[in-house]
Amino acid sequence: MQKPLILVTNDDGITSRGILSLVNVMKELGEVLVVAPNSPQSGMGHAITVGDTLRLNESFLFEGVKAYECSGTPADCVKIARHHILKGQRQPDVVVSGINHGSNTSISVLYSGTMSAAIEGAIEGTPAIGFSLCDYSHKADFSHTSEFVKKITKQVLEKELPKGTALNVNIPPKRNEPIKGIRICRQANAKWVEDFDKRYDPNGRSYFWMTGNFVNFDKGEDNDEWAIANNYVSVVPCQFDLTAHQAIPFLNEEWYILG
Amino acid sequence: MQKPLILVTNDDGITSRGILSLVNVMKELGEVLVVAPNSPQSGMGHAITVGDTLRLNESFLFEGVKAYECSGTPADCVKIARHHILKGQRQPDVVVSGINHGSNTSISVLYSGTMSAAIEGAIEGTPAIGFSLCDYSHKADFSHTSEFVKKITKQVLEKELPKGTALNVNIPPKRNEPIKGIRICRQANAKWVEDFDKRYDPNGRSYFWMTGNFVNFDKGEDNDEWAIANNYVSVVPCQFDLTAHQAIPFLNEEWYILG
Repeated sequence: MQKPLILVTNDDGITSRGILSLVNVMKELGEVLVVAPNSPQSGMGHAITVGDTLRLNESFLFEGVKAYECSGTPADCVKIARHHILKGQRQPDVVVSGINHGSNTSISVLYSGTMSAAIEGAIEGTPAIGFSLCDYSHKADFSHTSEFVKKITKQVLEKELPKGTALNVNIPPKRNEPIKGIRICRQANAKWVEDFDKRYDPNGRSYFWMTGNFVNFDKGEDNDEWAIANNYVSVVPCQFDLTAHQAIPFLNEEWYILG
Repeated sequence: MQKPLILVTNDDGITSRGILSLVNVMKELGEVLVVAPNSPQSGMGHAITVGDTLRLNESFLFEGVKAYECSGTPADCVKIARHHILKGQRQPDVVVSGINHGSNTSISVLYSGTMSAAIEGAIEGTPAIGFSLCDYSHKADFSHTSEFVKKITKQVLEKELPKGTALNVNIPPKRNEPIKGIRICRQANAKWVEDFDKRYDPNGRSYFWMTGNFVNFDKGEDNDEWAIANNYVSVVPCQFDLTAHQAIPFLNEEWYILG
């Protein structure tokens, strides 16, 4: 049987430790192609490069693995992999993105370049997974992630995913006790409350750093925030149909301007 | 009765004709605050500025209207409006974004800075609307949009929206016949198929322009693509819960790695 073709990308950039960890696991599962940003792209959401050019260069960072670094966003990387590098060739069997340095639970899925790359894969009809480690430290320990990254990717390759679905996988930070298991979750109802730290540059002109606190409003036990807090790996299936279907009847009934 | 407070932003930048057209309509409906990007931000999706600074300066572009230009993304503009400019003060009654120069129907909602600003408003619990004119021309005629922008914003102020909902409003280009009306729609099943136009810079190094064709797979008459093609204004209610709820039972049944 032909080995699966695995497209690997991320948003922390091709030199990050997270993508190296991901590539090392994927080499055990199939043929790997890396197309990742040449600079950090955290918080890029589903941005794409419009009205500007893209650069693409071969990278030799990963032993025995074909790799490219791209000047664009994570979503650009998936697009250029599919429609340029692999144009007219076999397409990936799975797109994996990460491992992100930091949590992408709850509302962070919207701001996450990691997850937007995965969702871009799902838009193209390919099963896709974004992996994040809930540890922002530069020295974060990734050693406990490999087991779960491998299990979940194998499971996806074996059972596929419902069409148009990308998985948002978050892995708890390394703690003293072992991870309890893997839970299928919904996106928690939580958000960031920002603050803007005003400073002055050497010329006396103001600028701001955006900072924020994460606030969890969710009391349920079936969401990704609960899972991480309770030392489970969370898996949220995500879709790219943003329609609030339940709001359609309300608008059709309440609005008098339709016609 | 107190006039509604209306926050206006966009993704084409504060100098674009679309935002001027939007501000002019909003001045008839309430008190207006503009916080918009100081440069074009098309295709920025839900990007936010992480790991970099933000600039914010007062703008005098709009007569009789308090306005600021910001170096960040559309989502940043909504955040800095709420958590810095209006901190501790009355918050907006509605967030309006646009009018975008070009269509944001179907899958484009994911890539659209216009809609991400609106969704950011919805995350904050404020009714929000993204307006787009389905005409990419620099000389696009906005004259027919005002009637619909005003009707829809008034309707939202009057009836509010289900919590966590932002409207994706697309307006057909000016044609010879009048627009037929307003339709509540779902997001069409369509996508972009990209191509990468490879060129060489004066130093002989390659670069790419991303181009794409929009492909519509949707045969329904209840979606935004159908509405625009048939000369209706489309209104898609959008949500920020990306959970593919229908996939949760599938994964819980099929996966053997859970625990």
